[in-house]
Amino acid sequence: MASISEMLESGAKGDRRAVARLISAVELQNEDSVEVMKQVYPKTGKAHIIGITGSPGAGKSSLVDKLITQFTNAGKSIGIIAIDPSSPFSGGAILGDRLRMQDHALDADVFIRSMGSRGYLGGVSQATYEAAQIMDACGKDIVIIETVGVGQSEVDIIRIADTVCLVLVPGMGDDVQIMKAGIMEIADLFIVNKSDRDGAPKVAKDVQMMLEMMEKKGAWMPPVLLTSTVKDEGIEEAGKAVMDHWKYLNETSAGHDRRAKRMASAVERVIQQRLAGVVERAWTKKREAGVVENLIDRKIDPYTLTEQIMSEIFK
Amino acid sequence: MASISEMLESGAKGDRRAVARLISAVELQNEDSVEVMKQVYPKTGKAHIIGITGSPGAGKSSLVDKLITQFTNAGKSIGIIAIDPSSPFSGGAILGDRLRMQDHALDADVFIRSMGSRGYLGGVSQATYEAAQIMDACGKDIVIIETVGVGQSEVDIIRIADTVCLVLVPGMGDDVQIMKAGIMEIADLFIVNKSDRDGAPKVAKDVQMMLEMMEKKGAWMPPVLLTSTVKDEGIEEAGKAVMDHWKYLNETSAGHDRRAKRMASAVERVIQQRLAGVVERAWTKKREAGVVENLIDRKIDPYTLTEQIMSEIFK
Repeated sequence: MASISEMLESGAKGDRRAVARLISAVELQNEDSVEVMKQVYPKTGKAHIIGITGSPGAGKSSLVDKLITQFTNAGKSIGIIAIDPSSPFSGGAILGDRLRMQDHALDADVFIRSMGSRGYLGGVSQATYEAAQIMDACGKDIVIIETVGVGQSEVDIIRIADTVCLVLVPGMGDDVQIMKAGIMEIADLFIVNKSDRDGAPKVAKDVQMMLEMMEKKGAWMPPVLLTSTVKDEGIEEAGKAVMDHWKYLNETSAGHDRRAKRMASAVERVIQQRLAGVVERAWTKKREAGVVENLIDRKIDPYTLTEQIMSEIFK
Repeated sequence: MASISEMLESGAKGDRRAVARLISAVELQNEDSVEVMKQVYPKTGKAHIIGITGSPGAGKSSLVDKLITQFTNAGKSIGIIAIDPSSPFSGGAILGDRLRMQDHALDADVFIRSMGSRGYLGGVSQATYEAAQIMDACGKDIVIIETVGVGQSEVDIIRIADTVCLVLVPGMGDDVQIMKAGIMEIADLFIVNKSDRDGAPKVAKDVQMMLEMMEKKGAWMPPVLLTSTVKDEGIEEAGKAVMDHWKYLNETSAGHDRRAKRMASAVERVIQQRLAGVVERAWTKKREAGVVENLIDRKIDPYTLTEQIMSEIFK
């Protein structure tokens, strides 16, 4: 079996199976994944990571499909991570849209991977982050991550992506969801898709107004664009705006600030994950000793119990 | 100043200020909150904790308002926790609805408290859990927690409530949101409100069908009820169904199982919170030593760094 460094080397030369195997390794989120990531990490930092988020039915997959064509025409190699919902209910509709995207799966410069949202309900998991890093290390110029919906978990995309695009459509009652989820605050780009529908200009105007109300700090004022993937309108402008944002990040201190924040949050996630394991072990021991019954009977409280556990595991 | 035990005693006698002060103490989530909770915990375990969740505009507050009347007429004392959204955008509409609820604020047997969702985006925080425990310890028979919306964070209500009611309305596109968020799986009771509107029976039928598809395990089949708070229809049945669920929990092993799970998750939350503090300190030290620049420059990776931090803080 090929070593991690051999797989990374093959992956960088365009060997899809090598990339796929590395991603499968991090999907397991075990000790092997850590070994993979230790070798992946030094090779990362070049790709432009783009997050595409928005409600189901907003046309994210069709838009991604169009952007792939545009970016590959410009000579870029692309990795796509399509996050699949954990729920068996909504699977069908989303897969339908994504089938179209699969037309690109045979392009030499496009690598597409679906990933489960496992425990993150539509959101962005540590494995997603690591898969993006692997694509980066394997020389993809652009990595696009398409999330499942708009929600709290989708806000996490900011912890991974350089550029966050929020895709909206008229008549979905998205406004409430967006404001609730805090996505307004993190999007670098607003795309109002299905622009041929009634109400599209109003959605764009409302977003613009909200952006002005928010007075987002920094030199980047998120553009609000209208697109129609069906009529093939506004797509070029959308792709250009994505690239403008990348340029902005690289030419100003904003890029460094963002990278520093993302780095910090990457470490925090790894620490959290590792800690969860430690806690799980300590807590399992206590559970096996019957502590839950003692809690139910009010013989001990969760706070005193925590202090006991903490003193057992910490220096 | 009164001691914690004195405040608990006064609170149990109906002193609103004492209850309010205890809740304010846990809202701070500091060492004092832990002291409060250590004394609160032994007195808990009697109240029926009811979670009311559903999209903004579903009429949750009006429903809660009606349920308060019904329960107080049955001689119950009630605590209400109304979770307010962190976002400044949606504040207005929700407060309007809730003003009506405030009519009960002068009832001797009703204690109403608004709490921020701070860092939980519309959801259920540790402070919410602890406030419910305080109300329980102060002798409330019923504690109702009203969340802000339907989303991932709302699913957490199951970690606090004995009975989870999901309030739906026709024409909100709730179905997608609900399935996405996994709320279907946790609700013990489905209330289709605004039953006078077109489409209400269809929503009820759809939910019923989804429930049958899911084949929820256990003896409790969640009832699906139609209510109209405006026409005062179906409210009594809804209140009765809530009580039926409580009876079911107390008369079967389901109640014990649920309590055991909640207990475990309470401990896990407390541990997580405490660990977060430890990690924060260790991580801040590293940051101050300039480790983020080293990460950006790929001189170290997050995984090796985590191993360093872990070996520094753990036995």
